[in-house]
Amino acid sequence: MFGCLVAGRLVQAAPQQVAEDKFVFDLPDYENINHVVVFMLGTLPFPEGMGGSVYFCYPDQSGMAVWQLLGFVTNEKPSAIFKISGLKSGKGSQHPFGAMNLPQTPTVAQIGISVELLESLAQQTPVANAAVSSVDSFTEFTQKMLDNFYNFASSFAVSQAQMTPNPSEAFIPASVVLKW
Amino acid sequence: MFGCLVAGRLVQAAPQQVAEDKFVFDLPDYENINHVVVFMLGTLPFPEGMGGSVYFCYPDQSGMAVWQLLGFVTNEKPSAIFKISGLKSGKGSQHPFGAMNLPQTPTVAQIGISVELLESLAQQTPVANAAVSSVDSFTEFTQKMLDNFYNFASSFAVSQAQMTPNPSEAFIPASVVLKW
Repeated sequence: MFGCLVAGRLVQAAPQQVAEDKFVFDLPDYENINHVVVFMLGTLPFPEGMGGSVYFCYPDQSGMAVWQLLGFVTNEKPSAIFKISGLKSGKGSQHPFGAMNLPQTPTVAQIGISVELLESLAQQTPVANAAVSSVDSFTEFTQKMLDNFYNFASSFAVSQAQMTPNPSEAFIPASVVLKW
Repeated sequence: MFGCLVAGRLVQAAPQQVAEDKFVFDLPDYENINHVVVFMLGTLPFPEGMGGSVYFCYPDQSGMAVWQLLGFVTNEKPSAIFKISGLKSGKGSQHPFGAMNLPQTPTVAQIGISVELLESLAQQTPVANAAVSSVDSFTEFTQKMLDNFYNFASSFAVSQAQMTPNPSEAFIPASVVLKW
């Protein structure tokens, strides 16, 4: 039903089914993985009203499994690219794989897919910055970041009249920031 | 032999074989595509010493096919994620699909895979910024951009002594830019 692809590696199309509604792919050498693609094979759709929550699971320093919600796949959006590099220091989130006790190996992470009601998925919040496809346009994203920067920087802006003498501080005309 | 996946859509595993060594996937509604994953199915490897060059093909304003080299897949690196949004205004590159005369539809682009000698692939230069996996860390990339910004902005920096009176210009302390 599901496939999983680590950018640069061979596709995996045979997850371990750890429960009736739960599937797990192993990700060996996960420290060297940037992007993971999770997709439906197209052979079997989700039952009406259901979809899948996609989790990344990695072992923390003491070997305990940390689960993080990456996002979702559904019949309407049957594939997604996730960026997992950068998640490894994050905190775990609530997850439905609690009782699985998957054996943890230091270098092996997992992708877990849990089939659930769409209403249940709608109440779950994935970790920030995992879904690559949600960054609709890199340029747009960058622009937003720079807008935020301008707002941040200009909150410190002073006019010359307000300036207290401090010869060691250099000042940047705000128009330069805008122009950039 | 190959699969193709547009982020958010169903996977395609049946390219049109337009020559013995050339395969084409259609990408309908390509204006709304950000990322494309190209991968080997794992059923059949490339012949010894060969690999595949991956092209993006889209119709220009007059309906002519423009081909751009995105990158490669090989037995050693059997999958890749490419970002195709942003390529649409770029110039075409040399390509081996010249005589194909693929029928061009305004909203449909193509992914073309050409099986070639690895030595031949090594002499080809993909368009910039297409390979997602080559941006190793988004944070790192962002940091570099901000460094560039600081270098740019600080080249305009003035000390208070140098300032010419201009009450309408707001100034941002350079330390704020660095802190951000």
